Amino acid sequence: MTDSAGSGLSHVRDDGSAHMVDVTAKAETKRVAVAQAVLHTRPDVILQISDGSLPKGEALGTARIAGIMAAKQTSNLIPLCHPLPIGSVTVDFETGSDSVRVLASVSTRGVTGVEMEALTAASVAALTLYDMIKAVDKRAMIDAIQVLEKSGGKSGDWSG
Amino acid sequence: MTDSAGSGLSHVRDDGSAHMVDVTAKAETKRVAVAQAVLHTRPDVILQISDGSLPKGEALGTARIAGIMAAKQTSNLIPLCHPLPIGSVTVDFETGSDSVRVLASVSTRGVTGVEMEALTAASVAALTLYDMIKAVDKRAMIDAIQVLEKSGGKSGDWSG
Amino acid sequence: MTDSAGSGLSHVRDDGSAHMVDVTAKAETKRVAVAQAVLHTRPDVILQISDGSLPKGEALGTARIAGIMAAKQTSNLIPLCHPLPIGSVTVDFETGSDSVRVLASVSTRGVTGVEMEALTAASVAALTLYDMIKAVDKRAMIDAIQVLEKSGGKSGDWSG
Amino acid sequence: MTDSAGSGLSHVRDDGSAHMVDVTAKAETKRVAVAQAVLHTRPDVILQISDGSLPKGEALGTARIAGIMAAKQTSNLIPLCHPLPIGSVTVDFETGSDSVRVLASVSTRGVTGVEMEALTAASVAALTLYDMIKAVDKRAMIDAIQVLEKSGGKSGDWSG
Amino acid sequence: MTDSAGSGLSHVRDDGSAHMVDVTAKAETKRVAVAQAVLHTRPDVILQISDGSLPKGEALGTARIAGIMAAKQTSNLIPLCHPLPIGSVTVDFETGSDSVRVLASVSTRGVTGVEMEALTAASVAALTLYDMIKAVDKRAMIDAIQVLEKSGGKSGDWSG
Amino acid sequence: MTDSAGSGLSHVRDDGSAHMVDVTAKAETKRVAVAQAVLHTRPDVILQISDGSLPKGEALGTARIAGIMAAKQTSNLIPLCHPLPIGSVTVDFETGSDSVRVLASVSTRGVTGVEMEALTAASVAALTLYDMIKAVDKRAMIDAIQVLEKSGGKSGDWSG
Repeated sequence: MTDSAGSGLSHVRDDGSAHMVDVTAKAETKRVAVAQAVLHTRPDVILQISDGSLPKGEALGTARIAGIMAAKQTSNLIPLCHPLPIGSVTVDFETGSDSVRVLASVSTRGVTGVEMEALTAASVAALTLYDMIKAVDKRAMIDAIQVLEKSGGKSGDWSG
Repeated sequence: MTDSAGSGLSHVRDDGSAHMVDVTAKAETKRVAVAQAVLHTRPDVILQISDGSLPKGEALGTARIAGIMAAKQTSNLIPLCHPLPIGSVTVDFETGSDSVRVLASVSTRGVTGVEMEALTAASVAALTLYDMIKAVDKRAMIDAIQVLEKSGGKSGDWSG
Repeated sequence: MTDSAGSGLSHVRDDGSAHMVDVTAKAETKRVAVAQAVLHTRPDVILQISDGSLPKGEALGTARIAGIMAAKQTSNLIPLCHPLPIGSVTVDFETGSDSVRVLASVSTRGVTGVEMEALTAASVAALTLYDMIKAVDKRAMIDAIQVLEKSGGKSGDWSG
Repeated sequence: MTDSAGSGLSHVRDDGSAHMVDVTAKAETKRVAVAQAVLHTRPDVILQISDGSLPKGEALGTARIAGIMAAKQTSNLIPLCHPLPIGSVTVDFETGSDSVRVLASVSTRGVTGVEMEALTAASVAALTLYDMIKAVDKRAMIDAIQVLEKSGGKSGDWSG
Repeated sequence: MTDSAGSGLSHVRDDGSAHMVDVTAKAETKRVAVAQAVLHTRPDVILQISDGSLPKGEALGTARIAGIMAAKQTSNLIPLCHPLPIGSVTVDFETGSDSVRVLASVSTRGVTGVEMEALTAASVAALTLYDMIKAVDKRAMIDAIQVLEKSGGKSGDWSG
Repeated sequence: MTDSAGSGLSHVRDDGSAHMVDVTAKAETKRVAVAQAVLHTRPDVILQISDGSLPKGEALGTARIAGIMAAKQTSNLIPLCHPLPIGSVTVDFETGSDSVRVLASVSTRGVTGVEMEALTAASVAALTLYDMIKAVDKRAMIDAIQVLEKSGGKSGDWSG
């Protein structure tokens, strides 16, 4: 490695060390990803979410904004993620009798997929809901964080 | 919404909920925006700004850097703003007898306008001036935050 | 200044240069500040804010969260502000016929006042409203950013 | 609400709007929280995690640092969380045949609990693992995000 | 400067004030930069780095992630740097008898060079190593922070 | 480790993994640290720094603000650093014939020392100077980043 200056960039990464892989040669295309996270709680807490009587106030709108803003922080949170020009973010909720399903959709016109952005948006929205209800339910749980569908990029369209 | 995985992205946003609108199909063009903010204080405080005798030190240069750095934080502060490749930022000051007018100009080669970046730069520069003088004037006020001119993008050139 | 290493800390700051002043000897007390910002627009836009028909969706709830989160970023935006353990933040809105008044209240149990945090919360909430309406009103303006009341700290209670 | 300036702070929050609740009167005590998240993948991917042959490189060490750093971003991600002087963070992994359990422990000497910090650390560490393996497993899933134990604060010790 | 609104953008920057220069007309090309920083310590500390017995734990992997993440923060740390779509980051270490050389390589497909990103990655990785060893060596020093090679952009290839 | 939930926190960290060590039992005292970094360039560039004729504008004031703001980002950049209530930051410059010495002083009333904050402030201020001059000197170098003096805390006063 003593000849690093003279030998171009071939000195970087010859072991299994973590690194941000090179995406400079990848094509910019429209890419979309949809991910989910599900918060499990009690039916009476779902009612409090719905009627706005939680101690910290209105929950779903707060969680939506948290999820949207978190999507834009993805490359600052996940060490090897590339920063991307995020083109859109939506966060929606499906409320069940004892759960809330968070659906996050992110698009870009960029060189990498946006699965991590969608997963981060869904996760942080769910964590925000957790924060709003934790005073009334300390046994809540979040599960089923996964990618539901993906389009664009080399691997083509895909749905889970 | 139970068919969200199978039906493409049509499940997102069918109510009035907040979301980052999709800009992936918009064309990249050069866009410029100029915005202002005006700080009102007392004439003797203006003198202290000018002669550098404020308790926290040099004010205008500090506010200029704060404004430039804030422009780059716009999409992290304003929930539904898109991140943009900011191409330039300048922050200038016009000092009157009892006021300082902050002028911020931002350009990009991107898919959305940069009004919010210019407004954020002007606002944060003005807030920084406020912070520098608040020990000597607790009745200072900031007003007239607005866009002065804008060029590029679908709506064409415009000046207020 | 060549003897800076040997002479304690007296070498720092002997000119008018900007610096974060030393607050390590100040007492921790409860401190509160209330600040405002006012957004001016058209009556029909106020109606769209109220009935949730703006292109980007629900505006007041979005602006509230933006303001609360911005309060926590104050010391990262304003160069000479000290980081503080923010104890509470509220953001409220008074809607007039052609304006929205943003009221932000911040408290801490800390060593400095929280005027800048309240001003930052009010300003960013108003800028967020601007962002939500700018597609329908490009001549909106924000003014009257000021501290309304303050309590705690050396200077005692105060209202503007 | 027109008398807000004169009537103290009683004007803030009279509806169900979201807000950061006031913690300025709460006592500082040592508080600890332990949370988990579980990543599910395939056995061959677990082997790649173990032998360091993933395309992006070493996974567990990367996820650990991501989790620790995310704990410190909690109040910037979750809108109504209070900033806290985090006293320690550890992130550990239990590797099963087709899963990795992330355990995050956070302590503080502060005025609020650190459940959200522990949950955020566990979630972001798990999301980072997801990012490292997504090139080889696009059907991975994260579940069982929950608080395992908590000590300190008004509600006393607790384990789930 | 009173005619700023009417005269286009010619009003900005007629003195020596700091500003982000305009890069909107520059061509996007692949650009690479390699930079280094060198940490000097004692031979016994190098051994502790190698055998993982430092009080804060594993040092090189931690510093690598810190450097990679810092590269993505460059435009938030250096006031006049432009945000760039970072395409890859690698951080490597050459351990000598009483020093560690940090080598950071960054690439982009963008309009400005990535020297500052590579320098920031190398510097923060070295500072992180310093943080890991400072309990056992309070006289450590970092030096030789410089750009080693650069390719792409107007000035063409170059090596120091 | 299967009994982690039942056995208190003893499960965390039994190997050499990186972690934020527990400082919750440490006493709050006033702590100060002074650090330096030295930028080496050419005499004609020093003249351009002094007379304000650099392409990006005024350099020392910009670097000072960058250093002060970076001090507040230390725990976000250095993975295992604890967030601290920074009490003061100053950044000063000693200009030689072909070098600029950056001196950063940071104080806190907290539970850990502020060496990393002072080193980060000095480093980022020096990197900012580098950024301002790199158009005219691509062979500049930063060295001698080290702690000059430290007071407060368990290890007592110290100067290098």
